[in-house]
Amino acid sequence: MGNKNISMAVIRRLPKYYRYLGDLLERDIQRISSKELSDIIGFTASQIRQDLNNFGGFGQQGYGYNVDALHNEIEKILGLDKKYNAILIGAGNLGQAITNYTGFKAAGFEIKGLFDANPRMIGLKLRDFEIMDSDNLEEFIEENDIEIAIICIPKNGAQEVTDRIVKAGVTGIWNFAPVDLEVPSHVIVENVNLTESLFTLSYLIKDNR
Amino acid sequence: MGNKNISMAVIRRLPKYYRYLGDLLERDIQRISSKELSDIIGFTASQIRQDLNNFGGFGQQGYGYNVDALHNEIEKILGLDKKYNAILIGAGNLGQAITNYTGFKAAGFEIKGLFDANPRMIGLKLRDFEIMDSDNLEEFIEENDIEIAIICIPKNGAQEVTDRIVKAGVTGIWNFAPVDLEVPSHVIVENVNLTESLFTLSYLIKDNR
Repeated sequence: MGNKNISMAVIRRLPKYYRYLGDLLERDIQRISSKELSDIIGFTASQIRQDLNNFGGFGQQGYGYNVDALHNEIEKILGLDKKYNAILIGAGNLGQAITNYTGFKAAGFEIKGLFDANPRMIGLKLRDFEIMDSDNLEEFIEENDIEIAIICIPKNGAQEVTDRIVKAGVTGIWNFAPVDLEVPSHVIVENVNLTESLFTLSYLIKDNR
Repeated sequence: MGNKNISMAVIRRLPKYYRYLGDLLERDIQRISSKELSDIIGFTASQIRQDLNNFGGFGQQGYGYNVDALHNEIEKILGLDKKYNAILIGAGNLGQAITNYTGFKAAGFEIKGLFDANPRMIGLKLRDFEIMDSDNLEEFIEENDIEIAIICIPKNGAQEVTDRIVKAGVTGIWNFAPVDLEVPSHVIVENVNLTESLFTLSYLIKDNR
């Protein structure tokens, strides 16, 4: 695919565009100006024009953006039209919450199995899944063509599991463990670091008190 | 407090410094050069010197940084030495996972109560808490000096709850609902947007396939 030189700052704004454009479609709004988009999304109209220019000319002077076409294009750019098989490792509280997370479908991620290392968790049912023994990760990844792993285990052990699943073929990791995973360059890691977010909140509140 | 003109980019790197410095302290390492820190954290030594210069002179030519002093100072800058009373709203799967999240203590946040609007949830026990009726939010916030609310409810309803809790005195929100909350300027909102993170992963994987 192209778009290699779009900055990560722009990419991280795309989900927001996608969400608001989806809202507009639900309300059956078919065209919108950068000014109106700006009022809704909160970015400046000039930033919006600049961002969307990265993906070709969806805006026309005096017409605005075609909402449906733009929504489709962002969907493709984000790869949301692709399907990925995923597993979740660590079926504790957070893992269970993530398993029930409804956003996977929109992203084309399908969870195929849950794993845990704790003997008391193995065999339990969660939604349609029976929690499997982490010992069998490699076999499952290879047999089910798993590309994505969602890591919801504590800090200790996260790197070891990562090494194993990467060796077995995983190329994308959604990491909730508070640790910087080391991976080969062909593997993508996206971190959700709750502590960093919470500390940022703490900082902002303190300065605001 | 000062530090008003430190950029958010620097602030968002501080939790990472704090975490790695904490690891060093656990291993009883008392001083470290920017070069060694760079090897561990992955930022360049020049970036590290620049970042840490924002907070005064912790580094000395030929000596390096005093790990303990730097750790303490970042703790203060992030406000981790302050105490905040918090409530959690929305005791579903994600809310339960967040309730069990061990990072609150490090940030000085103490959860004082859990709330849900679902009659089947109200009265259930979760850890030491009996889930309370969201109808009673205002009273609880005022009586318990609550500054922080963690919002774990779905998109619909999040703004309405926000309006209510802000009116009752909440000044900081850790928001897990996939919606941009509108708040008065004295209220801080820190978003954890799982969908945006997942879509970013989808983008990166797609380009990497």
